Amino acid sequence: MTTTTIATDQDLATLINVFTVTRMTQQPLVDLLTEATEQVMRHHPGFISANIHTSLDGTRVVNYAQWRSREDFQAMLDDPTAREHMSAAGSLATAEPHLYEVTSIHHA
Amino acid sequence: MTTTTIATDQDLATLINVFTVTRMTQQPLVDLLTEATEQVMRHHPGFISANIHTSLDGTRVVNYAQWRSREDFQAMLDDPTAREHMSAAGSLATAEPHLYEVTSIHHA
Repeated sequence: MTTTTIATDQDLATLINVFTVTRMTQQPLVDLLTEATEQVMRHHPGFISANIHTSLDGTRVVNYAQWRSREDFQAMLDDPTAREHMSAAGSLATAEPHLYEVTSIHHA
Repeated sequence: MTTTTIATDQDLATLINVFTVTRMTQQPLVDLLTEATEQVMRHHPGFISANIHTSLDGTRVVNYAQWRSREDFQAMLDDPTAREHMSAAGSLATAEPHLYEVTSIHHA
């Protein structure tokens, strides 16, 4: 499956993690997040999807991720292997993770 | 239509706008963004979708929006009515808008 759906009626927790990078660290961070997601995160209970975004101006990377619940996400944070990957990401970029709910959706 | 799709093969520009708020200003900003989107943004050429997210900790609002192209988004920025709404949002919150491309998607 290669698409993710945003909707207000899905019972899940959305993590939006904004990484501040430079043009030098943007691609290395994307590589690290991709590897961490494939090898660690996606095997965790409750993981639904991760969607890696790169800003056109080279200053940000955003991971828009979906978890079954806040509790599943928090359980992942306690896994030593996941923490190791997050610490590696932290050496390349400043991370600003927050959990969200989808409040409203508007289409043209 | 009440869902938005994230995919790597869509030819569009993704705007992720992160607003820093307080518990006092989070809901007023959501109301303002909702009104601005319905009344102004969604009628602009190239607007595809806006997806308003509120952080569970009360400190952020994120608009995950899709535009047909970077040029359509930039044309909207030159519209005086749109600028008025953005200025009103700016009085409630600090905005950090960036344009993105979807680099990779990972599912469980």
